[in-house]
Amino acid sequence: MTGQTNEPLLLLIDLQKGFDHPKWGERNNPEFVSNAKKIISHWRESNLPLVHVRHASTEPGSPLAPHETGHEFYEWAMPLEDETELVKQVNSCFIGTGLEALLKSRGVEQLVVLGLTTNHCVSTTVRMAGNFGFDVKLVGDACATFPRTSASGVHYSADIIHETALASLHGEFCTVTDTTTVINAQ
Amino acid sequence: MTGQTNEPLLLLIDLQKGFDHPKWGERNNPEFVSNAKKIISHWRESNLPLVHVRHASTEPGSPLAPHETGHEFYEWAMPLEDETELVKQVNSCFIGTGLEALLKSRGVEQLVVLGLTTNHCVSTTVRMAGNFGFDVKLVGDACATFPRTSASGVHYSADIIHETALASLHGEFCTVTDTTTVINAQ
Repeated sequence: MTGQTNEPLLLLIDLQKGFDHPKWGERNNPEFVSNAKKIISHWRESNLPLVHVRHASTEPGSPLAPHETGHEFYEWAMPLEDETELVKQVNSCFIGTGLEALLKSRGVEQLVVLGLTTNHCVSTTVRMAGNFGFDVKLVGDACATFPRTSASGVHYSADIIHETALASLHGEFCTVTDTTTVINAQ
Repeated sequence: MTGQTNEPLLLLIDLQKGFDHPKWGERNNPEFVSNAKKIISHWRESNLPLVHVRHASTEPGSPLAPHETGHEFYEWAMPLEDETELVKQVNSCFIGTGLEALLKSRGVEQLVVLGLTTNHCVSTTVRMAGNFGFDVKLVGDACATFPRTSASGVHYSADIIHETALASLHGEFCTVTDTTTVINAQ
């Protein structure tokens, strides 16, 4: 797995059944699943590298806890036998996973990122990836998130949370792109 | 500086003149300066620990580059002789600074965070702090930020960027609080 310096590695974040749980509220971007599927298929057909990251929540009652069915990958996102899977316990894919060392050992410089959720695990991971010096493309239309309520009780829709999260990342930590563009580029 | 386990450490992020540069656009939250001043004064009067972090940008033309006057701290945020100052080159106060080791060596478990900008350096730092296991209070009304434009050209005001950034952090990486509450708690 060395010498792949010029190949972008696809980082798949938390594509797990637990994100279908009603506790999160209504998820935005109904195209998220079909877009993520297209990119995963394209990466496999092109023999490009990919890494699956799965969240093992330590929060009491989380649908993503290891003993819950929600910890399972979506059927369409199941890793193949020779694909790398990492497990994390916090939002960032870089904390407690060895991901940075793994990427450096493979000579990876470019990342393409998609997954759940835009403003939490995806955003935290993209921020650290950018700060570590990786060239990051974030596929906005292959991410999704949920509504949030502020400390003072103001409700924000999943769409505005998603869009403002992407706007904060774009040009600072990564380039925000879309499914068609990222597929056509490889 | 050991044995301060129960004292919250005030982390001051990028209180630098370069953020008055017009290139960033119109900053939100006009109360940011007076609130930050109040908290810094209170921390000093209470002999509580604080750390100043200053951004040394490596971006060409950045007002925060080390040779620019914008790299200087605001007069009201100048470190005193015995206060710790760290320098960073990326958004996160934890990358390349030794901050995590410094906090652990002092037995710090609680952080109170304020500074610039809400959605970039503050948000990235708070995310990592939360993921590292620190108990973080983020003083929302002692932070501020600037407008953003998305990859597809949609403009978002500094206020909506600020408020949605805080809403995404609250309850996931930190507790968002305000100046009065944080001063009354110490």
